[in-house]
This record gives sequence, structure tokens and C-alpha cells, in this order.
Amino acid sequence: MSGGGSRVLKCRGFRWEGVELARYKDEEEGSRFRGVTRQTLLGESEPDLASVTRYFEVAPGGHSTLELHRHPHVVVVLRGRGTVRLGDESFELEPFDCVHVTPETPHQFRAAGDEPLGFLCIVDRERDRPRAVEEEEPAHPQGG
Amino acid sequence: MSGGGSRVLKCRGFRWEGVELARYKDEEEGSRFRGVTRQTLLGESEPDLASVTRYFEVAPGGHSTLELHRHPHVVVVLRGRGTVRLGDESFELEPFDCVHVTPETPHQFRAAGDEPLGFLCIVDRERDRPRAVEEEEPAHPQGG
Repeated sequence: MSGGGSRVLKCRGFRWEGVELARYKDEEEGSRFRGVTRQTLLGESEPDLASVTRYFEVAPGGHSTLELHRHPHVVVVLRGRGTVRLGDESFELEPFDCVHVTPETPHQFRAAGDEPLGFLCIVDRERDRPRAVEEEEPAHPQGG
Repeated sequence: MSGGGSRVLKCRGFRWEGVELARYKDEEEGSRFRGVTRQTLLGESEPDLASVTRYFEVAPGGHSTLELHRHPHVVVVLRGRGTVRLGDESFELEPFDCVHVTPETPHQFRAAGDEPLGFLCIVDRERDRPRAVEEEEPAHPQGG
């Protein structure tokens, strides 16, 4: 029996062996996002996979872009605490909480406390580009 | 802005809110597998998702079926320690290690130590059924 390309990516301190620590987006960090890194674990160079598994980490005080797109997200928190905004509401997050972001839902992740907020985010390999949402008014504090 | 069905599944002690703790397989527990549970987090009842995200937990001393199938797996360990067999080799696993099981690779997860081995396993929604592999000889101890 052969392993046929199967492999284990070892993790040490939330860095995966052989995986580049990448920029979150190809645009300048500023008001739209702050303190976010990306590691693409599997799916970009593995043609048998229809989904891409990424790990994002948001530094304390940081946040992702408030954005939306047609493709959905599956998110599973691995470390830290924070909030996710889903439409008009915000929800607290802690390790292993799972989030379903449905198509066209504006969403944003924020780290809380002293530890980074780290989470897996699984998407389809074929997907549309995110569109940033321009903030008109503050979101309701801590709904749902 | 609307949340449009987006939601957070809170996790407490590796049980997710509203998610059934299910049998690993619809067959009797025995020599093929032992001490495995399944929670399907997202993808079975969410038509926008092309992938299904499951959480499996293998009790201390337990193991999954040695099996193979055409669809690939993406696995991320959330708790415990153990090993994964991939073809003829076995690899140690600890939290946050990531595994790519390619199509037709015989694979099996085993828990080691006193804590359960818990991991996410992401698959395509449309997929073939696993086929059990009948063991002919013991796998090489701890390769790769």
C-alpha cells in the first residue's frame, strides 16, 4: 500500500511546517484591517481538494476587513478570544467555536484580550473576490 | 445588513451546541473500529456549503477503521495525541497537526495516552463510500 502523496503538516506554535506566513491581503494595512496573517494549509497546490483550508491569526487589537462575498465560510477557532460580526450582530468567540458565514453576509473578526485570535477558515477553491463594506454606523454591541 | 442564516455554533468541552453526538459508522463496533464518535458541525443541512466539516473523537485505546476511498480528507487535530497511518507508514499526531489524506490512501487514526484524540475532518459533500482494508500484516512501526 502506498501513501500516494498523503502527508502530515506538523504544527509548532501555530506555524505549520513548510507553510508560508503570508499577508492577509494584497493591499496596505490600515483602517480596513489590522494585524492579520494568513497561512494556507491545504488546497491551493493539491488538485484533489475542492476546498482550501487557511489559518488566519488576528493580533490583539486587530481585525479583519468588514466584507462580503458569494462564497460561504466555515470557521473554527483554534486559539484566543474575540468577536465575529455577522450582518448587524456581533458574537463572542472562544476556542473551537464554529461559524457558518453564509453567502453575502457582511462579516468581520476582531481579537479581544492579550492573545491572538486564530482560526481555520475553509472555502471553496473556486470562489469570488471579497468586497469591502464601507461602515455607515457602528454595529450593535454584542447581540445574539 | 442581514445575517442571512449565518450563525455561531458554541463549543463546550468538545460538544457543539445543537449538534448530535453520533455513531461513527452504521455497523457494530468491534475489530474494525473502537471508541469513535462523530459530530457533523456544518455542511449536511447547509446547501450553500460544498464541504462537510465533521469532528471525530477517538477514545484512549480506540481507533478508526483502516479504510480508503476516492475522496480526499483534510484533517486538523484539536485535542489529544495519537497516530495516523497513511499507506504503509505511521505518523505521530498532536494538536493542530494537519493531515492530507489523498484519494485511495488506506488510513487509520489511533489515540495514544489518556486523552481522547479529537480532530476535524473535512470532506466534499458528494463523495464515495469508504471501503475497509483487511489487514494482511502489521504496519511498520513509526515510519516517516
